[in-house]
Amino acid sequence: MSDDDQELGITESKSHNTGEWYAEVVRKAGLADYGPEGMSGFIVTRPRAYAVWERLQGFLDAKFKDTGVRNAYFPMFIPESYLEREKDIVEGFDPEVAWVTEAGTKELEERLAVRPTSESIITPYISQWVRSHRDLPLRVNQWCSVVRWEATETKPFFRTKEFLWQEGHTAHATSEDAWNETMTRLDQYESVYEDFLAIPVLKGQKPDHDAFPGADTTTTVEALMPDGKSVQGATSHHLGQSFAEAFDITFSDAEEDERTAHTTSWGLSWRALGALIMTHSDEQGLVLPPTVAPTQVVVVPIWQEDTKDDVLAYAEGVADDLEAAGIRVELDDRDERNPGFKFNEHELNGVPLRIEIGPYEVEDDELTLNHRPDGEERVEDREGVAETVRDHLDTVYAKLYAAAEDTLDGEVREADDRAGILGTLGQHGGYVKTPWCGDEACEEPIKEPMAAEIVMVPFENDDPLVGDGVDDDLDDGSDGGAGHGETCAICGGPAERTAYFAKSY
Amino acid sequence: MSDDDQELGITESKSHNTGEWYAEVVRKAGLADYGPEGMSGFIVTRPRAYAVWERLQGFLDAKFKDTGVRNAYFPMFIPESYLEREKDIVEGFDPEVAWVTEAGTKELEERLAVRPTSESIITPYISQWVRSHRDLPLRVNQWCSVVRWEATETKPFFRTKEFLWQEGHTAHATSEDAWNETMTRLDQYESVYEDFLAIPVLKGQKPDHDAFPGADTTTTVEALMPDGKSVQGATSHHLGQSFAEAFDITFSDAEEDERTAHTTSWGLSWRALGALIMTHSDEQGLVLPPTVAPTQVVVVPIWQEDTKDDVLAYAEGVADDLEAAGIRVELDDRDERNPGFKFNEHELNGVPLRIEIGPYEVEDDELTLNHRPDGEERVEDREGVAETVRDHLDTVYAKLYAAAEDTLDGEVREADDRAGILGTLGQHGGYVKTPWCGDEACEEPIKEPMAAEIVMVPFENDDPLVGDGVDDDLDDGSDGGAGHGETCAICGGPAERTAYFAKSY
Repeated sequence: MSDDDQELGITESKSHNTGEWYAEVVRKAGLADYGPEGMSGFIVTRPRAYAVWERLQGFLDAKFKDTGVRNAYFPMFIPESYLEREKDIVEGFDPEVAWVTEAGTKELEERLAVRPTSESIITPYISQWVRSHRDLPLRVNQWCSVVRWEATETKPFFRTKEFLWQEGHTAHATSEDAWNETMTRLDQYESVYEDFLAIPVLKGQKPDHDAFPGADTTTTVEALMPDGKSVQGATSHHLGQSFAEAFDITFSDAEEDERTAHTTSWGLSWRALGALIMTHSDEQGLVLPPTVAPTQVVVVPIWQEDTKDDVLAYAEGVADDLEAAGIRVELDDRDERNPGFKFNEHELNGVPLRIEIGPYEVEDDELTLNHRPDGEERVEDREGVAETVRDHLDTVYAKLYAAAEDTLDGEVREADDRAGILGTLGQHGGYVKTPWCGDEACEEPIKEPMAAEIVMVPFENDDPLVGDGVDDDLDDGSDGGAGHGETCAICGGPAERTAYFAKSY
Repeated sequence: MSDDDQELGITESKSHNTGEWYAEVVRKAGLADYGPEGMSGFIVTRPRAYAVWERLQGFLDAKFKDTGVRNAYFPMFIPESYLEREKDIVEGFDPEVAWVTEAGTKELEERLAVRPTSESIITPYISQWVRSHRDLPLRVNQWCSVVRWEATETKPFFRTKEFLWQEGHTAHATSEDAWNETMTRLDQYESVYEDFLAIPVLKGQKPDHDAFPGADTTTTVEALMPDGKSVQGATSHHLGQSFAEAFDITFSDAEEDERTAHTTSWGLSWRALGALIMTHSDEQGLVLPPTVAPTQVVVVPIWQEDTKDDVLAYAEGVADDLEAAGIRVELDDRDERNPGFKFNEHELNGVPLRIEIGPYEVEDDELTLNHRPDGEERVEDREGVAETVRDHLDTVYAKLYAAAEDTLDGEVREADDRAGILGTLGQHGGYVKTPWCGDEACEEPIKEPMAAEIVMVPFENDDPLVGDGVDDDLDDGSDGGAGHGETCAICGGPAERTAYFAKSY
């Protein structure tokens, strides 16, 4: 969009109309456009948002590679017969699959699913590649897009029919190794949110009835949005042996006995961008932590005709120093725009730090710095500008994180009966923590009237609760977070676990 | 695949059965597997090949970003009605399109094409984003996969129904700007081949009748494969105004007059990996230039029981020094394999440089280095190992490039009549350079009996020949490479151009 047409500033209220406010930020900050006619649910990811995604990829991919993961690429289509080989997968995804049925002028003999997730095509290859215990662990990951044809309303990055993500797939000799893998990836996802996106998360597992299709246990990082809803930030699944059995991943162990492998899968999607935009942004527009911002610092020279040369030369020197220090800096020396317009525009676009340079700064060998999240203004010496800017960028990150942490801390409440849960959710939103028997039936009396559900069950001592049916040796009999002797808030039976109820995206 | 099952070494002959030899290298070096049953034409890209693709992406993407390109992501589907809006695109790609017709349990109202290329969905958005001449040039690029349902035999990386690529799309105020863009990208593609993949290329344009659908002119880099066939290494298209008109990209110029933009598109696919594998590899397996090799150096310690500790400690020190210097090094200290097996395995997998360390090397404070392409062995001092290794890696690159350049130089021949062209192609393969009138009809007498075609028309003085119908102001009347006064080798008419005939992939 041309500058001329760009309306700066957001008209919707973040606190009152969060959904409309979010859509307006996404559009005005040039993050995404809606798909073409006939393709509702699809979005176009514009360069500003894609650049953030690339930085996130770089951060996470480096962690993956440091911990034994290798990237690969598998076909985007899955033959229907492959999808059907793991029954939970087909039941879980069939209603959402986009099907290729024709190619060129011919009808295909077998329908091909556009991948909704790739277990069903990756696992058979892992099965070919694994022969001996020496081939394990085997880890592959791919960065790609997947398609899930959901009928709900489009919300860029949160709900789209096609989305970008990474999906990792691993095979291991033992269930314990697979558990360790599952938790390694979950910890890396936590780090993406906390160390890179400035968003604190809650770590735990999904209730068994809400696990990934075919998984023993699904672990999750949950982030709280400003409207009191929870976002599933990324998930890491211990798949047990269901896929290994369906696709026959066996290996000979050190004693030459044939055994079946244990697998995991784990994924983080561009929903992380949605959480990022929604958590930090405000009514001036996009707010980005310096870690992910394509432009970290904008230098805005402020001149009159008689001071122009001096101010510009000084501003260029500052920008050059910052660039040489590896800081992502932009010098906004456009003639046709006044400083006020530039301030608003860079605020809309989420530049974390602004440096204003006018004749007074030049005269005093100083800089005026302005923090994006709160407008705090500070005057600093010109000397050592790179180090000064780094400190301010760190401060900006810390402010964003602290604000999000404050919100989260205030939004975890307790309740111990149905009325209390419903009342607390209805009045405040956020999370309501309650003792729970572990039965899906006890989620219904909350889910039905309130559209809230159990989004997370915390780990106890970092140990996930083990799913039904397998790996009982790993279930150490702990009570999964609920205090001993407590009773389920709904049915009054013994409370095995602690449940976090919330509305969710 | 487990080491136990890995057959080392290639059984097919590169010179006699190039196709089979290539397929064997791809399989045994763990580069790609074929797609599942029911999905012939698809491949699985395994980590060793994908790591090379990632390095190539990094090299090219940095060049793009340095020259004003921003990455984005557009939907993978294109509504049929959009595909139909540019008539050449729909004619060119319709026979190869995979169609999504059902989603979930419903039939779609309009068929969606899985993108064969994205002009038809990107151009309408560019049209929305461009309002004023100040919005130009506008450049976006995406790294993604596309699908073209070709019926020909699968050849991993050369011919696959789905392939990975990048596609750049730009809009400009003038035809000249669009030309400059077209040539900037072509030069960057040339650099990928020559400076990164160690493959010399010929730069030129496709005959007009073989241009990209809807393009004014398609420019190309062509690489010669060892079996004498040419590979189209990447293409950069001056699209003229056909897409801008079909999708209405207009802008107001400095005088506030409305004008139509000029667009380009340009793409490089994983075919570059195919060319890389085929050009350098040999009958020991994969050969990779150090620029792209996931592992640049392997250190193989050679010990007896009594020397093991000393040799291993020394080898670890060498590997540590190399790693600290940023060299991608692997220490192969596996107990269960002997050095001979390790040598063969790393040769198969394309590690450019091997360092052997035994008791003699330890005693003399030396290293024995072995170059992958030709087995040249050199003894060097332990001191300054990082610099020494860098020099050797440069030498290895230079050897690979020189060998490929020698081949190319010997494979460009001239002929000035039909019998000469056919005879030369039949006897030698390679390129046959001949005067040509510019008429498609004069390609037929070669194409029909020989399956060879005009793969390239060289530029004269770096100026492309301009397509018919538009931009005649840019056509400077040069004769496009053919000597003045020459006659077409086929029809005897005036020769406007020089044609390079070749068989091609």
